[in-house]
Amino acid sequence: SEVKKIAVIAGDGIGPEVVGEALKVMKKTEELFGYQFEFEHGLFGGIAIDEKGTPLPQETLDICKKADAVLLGAVGGPKWDNNPKELRPETGLLGIRKALGLFSNIRPANVFDCLKEASTLKPEVLEGTDLIVVRELTGGIYFGEKFRREGANGEEAVDTCVYNVQEVERIVRQAFDIAMTRSKRLASVDKANVLETSRLWREVVNRIAPEYPEVELEHVLVDNCAMQLLRRPSSFDVIVTENMFGDILSDEAAMLTGSIGMLSSASLGEGSFGLYEPVHGSAPDIAGQGISNPIATILSVALMFRLTFGYHEAAKVIEDAVKNVLDAGHRTGDIAVDKSSAIGTTAMGDLIVAAM
Amino acid sequence: SEVKKIAVIAGDGIGPEVVGEALKVMKKTEELFGYQFEFEHGLFGGIAIDEKGTPLPQETLDICKKADAVLLGAVGGPKWDNNPKELRPETGLLGIRKALGLFSNIRPANVFDCLKEASTLKPEVLEGTDLIVVRELTGGIYFGEKFRREGANGEEAVDTCVYNVQEVERIVRQAFDIAMTRSKRLASVDKANVLETSRLWREVVNRIAPEYPEVELEHVLVDNCAMQLLRRPSSFDVIVTENMFGDILSDEAAMLTGSIGMLSSASLGEGSFGLYEPVHGSAPDIAGQGISNPIATILSVALMFRLTFGYHEAAKVIEDAVKNVLDAGHRTGDIAVDKSSAIGTTAMGDLIVAAM
Ligand SMILES: CC(C)[C@H](C(=O)O)[C@@H](O)C(=O)O
Ligand SMILES: CC(C)[C@H](C(=O)O)[C@@H](O)C(=O)O
Repeated sequence: SEVKKIAVIAGDGIGPEVVGEALKVMKKTEELFGYQFEFEHGLFGGIAIDEKGTPLPQETLDICKKADAVLLGAVGGPKWDNNPKELRPETGLLGIRKALGLFSNIRPANVFDCLKEASTLKPEVLEGTDLIVVRELTGGIYFGEKFRREGANGEEAVDTCVYNVQEVERIVRQAFDIAMTRSKRLASVDKANVLETSRLWREVVNRIAPEYPEVELEHVLVDNCAMQLLRRPSSFDVIVTENMFGDILSDEAAMLTGSIGMLSSASLGEGSFGLYEPVHGSAPDIAGQGISNPIATILSVALMFRLTFGYHEAAKVIEDAVKNVLDAGHRTGDIAVDKSSAIGTTAMGDLIVAAM
Repeated sequence: SEVKKIAVIAGDGIGPEVVGEALKVMKKTEELFGYQFEFEHGLFGGIAIDEKGTPLPQETLDICKKADAVLLGAVGGPKWDNNPKELRPETGLLGIRKALGLFSNIRPANVFDCLKEASTLKPEVLEGTDLIVVRELTGGIYFGEKFRREGANGEEAVDTCVYNVQEVERIVRQAFDIAMTRSKRLASVDKANVLETSRLWREVVNRIAPEYPEVELEHVLVDNCAMQLLRRPSSFDVIVTENMFGDILSDEAAMLTGSIGMLSSASLGEGSFGLYEPVHGSAPDIAGQGISNPIATILSVALMFRLTFGYHEAAKVIEDAVKNVLDAGHRTGDIAVDKSSAIGTTAMGDLIVAAM
């Protein structure tokens, strides 16, 4: 089959370790399915600040632009937390989203049977929870004009939240499309009783809805959604929302599953290109010890296979391998009940590869 | 003792029913403690739209301005949901906050022993949860300029989020002051890695912090806070944040206690004036049936007594009466396990008055 170019951005903290295991999984699929991947590595985040003086070097961006998909580990750490804005890992993250046109962030929040007990929610409430948050990723208050000025009452700071019809349309269409492949329920989250951008958002959703007569649509106010996620998580299927609300709600949704160390995410643009990364962060406290959990990154590869390459069979092989290894009782420290029997990052990766 | 003027705004839905019971409680304290209250009733919300053509009539505002405190039931309902902005109950709510200078919303989220099971969180996670969200209420994206315009890609909507130093200072000082009366822990929530208003917010918090050397301060990013509330709710004491984040997080915090039907809130300005209301809404589905739970509104009276009047003894009498009635097993339908033995709004109010 055709050679696929993968940009590999290991990043900071545990990023390199978990990405290493994900690459082993990809190589195994070359063997099993005859795929061909060409990996190009790029510096990004804190390490790029240290080595290149910028969190997102032009070379890295070029590597990504030439690639069919990007695999990202994690970025950031206390070392760079007090840097000025241009020298912070997050600035690189926002920059890469914008530069690659990744307007949609897809975050599945599902419950792993073996981790049900890890959630702080009661198991019976969580039962059947399997939702996806579709977050707009290149607009809203994240990318609007920001500045300081002297006001009547002294210094003030300003952030601007802007959405145009087109930006809302494309993300909403994508969410409807995803809902069509699932249980056909879509919750559109806004704050239309207060914000003008939310009123525009709701108008666009209502205009598009008739194109998807099979999808059951509800509008949920963001404050209410924060509550309903806790009260009835399993009643949600696809949630679509703007950038800032999506940041908050996708983290809430991830945490309530108890499986946050296992969740993967995709950031998509037009076409099949996508950037894939685990939901968890760079965990600087455990970096370099070989004890991090590579499963979220490995499952990000499965997501890449499904969404960018249409390699559904291989995706299923990866997901099943993860499930089998977990069912056999193997655990990294973060998900182990008995910490003394926990296995390391490489051992977990090897077991998953062997189970494929 | 001095006559205290109370503006009573019953509002819509179950508002009038629950406020009626709260007034009985206040009258009982006149008897027990020799207090004197003068009640003036004002139209507000949906009923004001119907009767006066505006959600916040000038007469109502005048009544509030002359009063020492405001007791509010609840506003809104499906009847007015599709009205134009100026004719929506929420517009009245935002208007009254601004007109009365209520820059601070105080929302205690504590767990009622008898309702522990009502939470979707595991009881052991909830154990000891007793936090207060202090939300900035008259600034930020709620009150910044909002408009539509033609952009390069068609129509766009704009919301503006503005904070000046003074606005941040007064709410942050208040939060530190509250923390000093409690466990002396303050979590300041922002999105300083993205927003300019959050960077200003954090600067101000750090500048004020040395004035409160006994308070243990942490900065928490809003997305992380949405997670930590689920993971370790009992580790929070006072949370202070801006308007929009506070809207979302205070609802999340309220819901996780399982006690949302029992929670009260205060909106405060400079000085001792305050507006007190239950956290729950107008519940139009059960309005007029006499089955609503008046406890949150009754506890809002206790909050008024503490924060506006310094009537601490009477506040304690009210809180203890509520506790005793609950401990004796009395429940309204919303909190009853066995719905068939549930009592009505008036019966609950009478029992609490009798227990005082
Ligand atoms: C690091 C930060 C800028 C980023 C965001 O807010 O988008 C992160 O929280 C995320 O969700 O990917
Ligand atoms: C009704 C709405 C405008 C209001 C808000 O967002 O402030 C409500 O959600 C609240 O929290 O009091």
